Amino acid sequence: MNNHAAAKRGIPSKDDFNSWYPFIVEAAELVDKRYPIKGMDVWRPYGWKTMRLIDSLTHSQMEATGHEEYRFPLLIPEALLDKENRLVARLKAAREAGVDPSDLRMEEEQAGFENEVYWVRHAGASQIDEAMFLRPTSETAMYTMFPLWIRSHADLPLKTYQMVNTFRYETKQTRSFIRVREIHFFEAHTAHEDEASASEQIEEDLEIVQSIAKDICLPVLLSKRPLWDTFPGAWYTIGVDVVMPNGRTLQIASCHHYRDQWAQAFDIRYEDENGKQQFVHQTTYGMSERLVGAIVGMHGDDSGLIMPPSIAPIQVIIIPILSRERGEDVLTSSKQVSALLMGQGLRVHIDDREIRPGQKYYDWEIKGVPLRIEIGPRDLDSNQVMVARRTGGKSPIPIDDLAILVNDELMAVSDELWTRARQQLEEYVHPLPSINRAGDKWELSAPLIDDKVYFLFWEGSDADAERLEHLTGLSFLGTEVGHNKGKGVCAVTGKPTSTIIHMARMY
Amino acid sequence: MNNHAAAKRGIPSKDDFNSWYPFIVEAAELVDKRYPIKGMDVWRPYGWKTMRLIDSLTHSQMEATGHEEYRFPLLIPEALLDKENRLVARLKAAREAGVDPSDLRMEEEQAGFENEVYWVRHAGASQIDEAMFLRPTSETAMYTMFPLWIRSHADLPLKTYQMVNTFRYETKQTRSFIRVREIHFFEAHTAHEDEASASEQIEEDLEIVQSIAKDICLPVLLSKRPLWDTFPGAWYTIGVDVVMPNGRTLQIASCHHYRDQWAQAFDIRYEDENGKQQFVHQTTYGMSERLVGAIVGMHGDDSGLIMPPSIAPIQVIIIPILSRERGEDVLTSSKQVSALLMGQGLRVHIDDREIRPGQKYYDWEIKGVPLRIEIGPRDLDSNQVMVARRTGGKSPIPIDDLAILVNDELMAVSDELWTRARQQLEEYVHPLPSINRAGDKWELSAPLIDDKVYFLFWEGSDADAERLEHLTGLSFLGTEVGHNKGKGVCAVTGKPTSTIIHMARMY
Repeated sequence: MNNHAAAKRGIPSKDDFNSWYPFIVEAAELVDKRYPIKGMDVWRPYGWKTMRLIDSLTHSQMEATGHEEYRFPLLIPEALLDKENRLVARLKAAREAGVDPSDLRMEEEQAGFENEVYWVRHAGASQIDEAMFLRPTSETAMYTMFPLWIRSHADLPLKTYQMVNTFRYETKQTRSFIRVREIHFFEAHTAHEDEASASEQIEEDLEIVQSIAKDICLPVLLSKRPLWDTFPGAWYTIGVDVVMPNGRTLQIASCHHYRDQWAQAFDIRYEDENGKQQFVHQTTYGMSERLVGAIVGMHGDDSGLIMPPSIAPIQVIIIPILSRERGEDVLTSSKQVSALLMGQGLRVHIDDREIRPGQKYYDWEIKGVPLRIEIGPRDLDSNQVMVARRTGGKSPIPIDDLAILVNDELMAVSDELWTRARQQLEEYVHPLPSINRAGDKWELSAPLIDDKVYFLFWEGSDADAERLEHLTGLSFLGTEVGHNKGKGVCAVTGKPTSTIIHMARMY
Repeated sequence: MNNHAAAKRGIPSKDDFNSWYPFIVEAAELVDKRYPIKGMDVWRPYGWKTMRLIDSLTHSQMEATGHEEYRFPLLIPEALLDKENRLVARLKAAREAGVDPSDLRMEEEQAGFENEVYWVRHAGASQIDEAMFLRPTSETAMYTMFPLWIRSHADLPLKTYQMVNTFRYETKQTRSFIRVREIHFFEAHTAHEDEASASEQIEEDLEIVQSIAKDICLPVLLSKRPLWDTFPGAWYTIGVDVVMPNGRTLQIASCHHYRDQWAQAFDIRYEDENGKQQFVHQTTYGMSERLVGAIVGMHGDDSGLIMPPSIAPIQVIIIPILSRERGEDVLTSSKQVSALLMGQGLRVHIDDREIRPGQKYYDWEIKGVPLRIEIGPRDLDSNQVMVARRTGGKSPIPIDDLAILVNDELMAVSDELWTRARQQLEEYVHPLPSINRAGDKWELSAPLIDDKVYFLFWEGSDADAERLEHLTGLSFLGTEVGHNKGKGVCAVTGKPTSTIIHMARMY
């Protein structure tokens, strides 16, 4: 691990986020990007442990809300993609005929994932009868089975989830955790008797995602996506975004209300209490390894990562300060402290390598271990240890109080991360300068600042939105869910409204 | 779940194992085989939970032995397969030139997995520059990275593992868990300074696999596979088999000692203490979802599965016997008992469906829940409950003693499963009848019995082995590791030996 200390000296400043981020994910040994396929990283033990601990939070939430875990095959027969394409085409035609025909961006909507899937057409030396693709997401695989399991209203709601890898042939530049070609993915899929019950599920999903985000100290923006950014086949989509230090928003989760649109395409029906056949209403809720990317980006600093204590693979690193005379006593004491803390269910490691303590500090700072405990010969006499928080600050704690106070210290790191992230979010998000309109000519009353997210009150049309996107070079995140900014007037139409829109550059 | 009780009446007898097995895996809701790709089942929650609990046993063993968990990409570039093929060809040539040139079966040895991999050559609408294949196992993916992580002797041993799905284009008949095309897989890969250290790793692996097998009540046979059944690129392979009720052996795990053969192919070297470059010595240890297949096959009976308590998704099913007058009291008491047992870390479920108790019994018998607790109105008065073991037997237990005695009851089920499985194994394994040789003509002194595994003392040549396989229609499992049958004489050569060989039909 000697390369860490050296690496530390080479860490780019976090102000240069686009250099800092790719450097730090490798220096902290989360992933190795040298695997010979672009956009497919190797998860190293420290990164994978982090991901698994995040997954544990998700498993707990799923269990508490009555979801059951399934595991569907990776490969999907081509015929099912055709089924999805027909659904998407039908919805597209309906929208083009209806709501807002002027919206040209409809064309940007992909026909499903057809352009980004990996195809399997050969096995061994032979061609396969029916082509298959690697799941980009599992709607088609799962909804093929749902009709076999749903017969009557007594089978509803059906609340399923799985954690699997999904595959997308990304043509854009890849970036660890944020845009990769093999994605560690969580997806919940539910089926309900009616639209209202499905809507309640979306509420539950949003509570879950906010609870998990709070656990990992990430304040989020919830936005109902504009129509043109709605998932194919969905009635509406709610995106959950964090704002990264370069001002870009990163979608870390999304929830889709499908109404009965997929059910019609896949013939998923149930017999209601009156013996009548009805289509189910469906929802999905997805998250991915982007949660790790968000943790890296939001909490890290010039010295490396800072791991939220809830999911830190190592919560407490113990550094014995070994002296020639009392080295063994210090090590014994370190082991006692370690055993004490592990007995409390904490994840603890003793770094007993024969290198300078300063070098050890560097190494564990890069990896973002929340608490460092230093135990030296003098501490033995005073029966105390030094406890340093990765977020700053260091104080002596009597060994007798350690069992209680270490949890307080971890909580303090967690609170500090949350407070900082909240402050950052407030700094990132600005009101959009007002728009001066001279007939067809639109101008912003002040220049935009790089690296910021903007909000505005909004009652404009989709055509207005498109125009504003062109003017600002930013994208509509959508309508903020549950904002607390009261009422205002629409930046374009002047109509009074309580609808808030965010605009940003999106990852 | 009403279909269970109905299904129960249709369960084939376990004597007709080839009908019983496919029926029971679906009736117990382990998997659903109706997914539209042959050999790729959907794991349902009960089956997936079972698999995850088995995985937990493996994770614990890996952690206790200092292995670290990685996660490598699914896709492997074609060039790496070529590398593997060159290795295999080289070894094959060496063997053909050396040890036993008369062994024609060498030709059966696959050149790696080339004939059974799924190929990805297209993404979206375009062809990919370099073809990739879905991992059939991860040697090539992992050993591409090992040279980046191993520099000096201080980096060794490197003990890695991952749990991922692997893919094989099976052309034989598929069978849930036993022969599938997408395989839930565990693989440990280690690198060591020398052959001896790698050999010690194999010893550790065999201890681990036997410990896990004991946890799930499966007695196993350990066999050093014959040369022609050695994994490509391996010096030797040890297979771990169970004997299924139809007399077929099922390999549930295997360990391979690679010496430095793969290291030479992938240039994995380290600097030793004298500053000299050396190739590492490597081992692998693999297990798969076949463990579930073995549990189903070995422990089940005419009423359904019997789950070993260590990995039963539900260890205790509580059936409230509801009467009109005291229904609520019974339910309250059931919840108290459930809370008591869950407080002890047990996996408990209350079946409060409004159907006959008898029907509930059927349902949970099919799923193999080890213990059933019945709580009726009369039990409330006597402050006791009835506890029924899935392996047979039923007795009243005072509620006050339940916390202690339920663990004893689970242990008793576990012991019973182990004892039965050991007895079965002894019944399955017979000595091979002696061979009468008249010159070139070989004959068995007695006819073979179907559904049996045979053992014999062995010092014959590979050519003799081939001949014996033809004569018996059985395959050589290999040399039994650590047998206790003492010494004998070789069935063919008459030489005295302590080497025991098993012969069987293999899955």
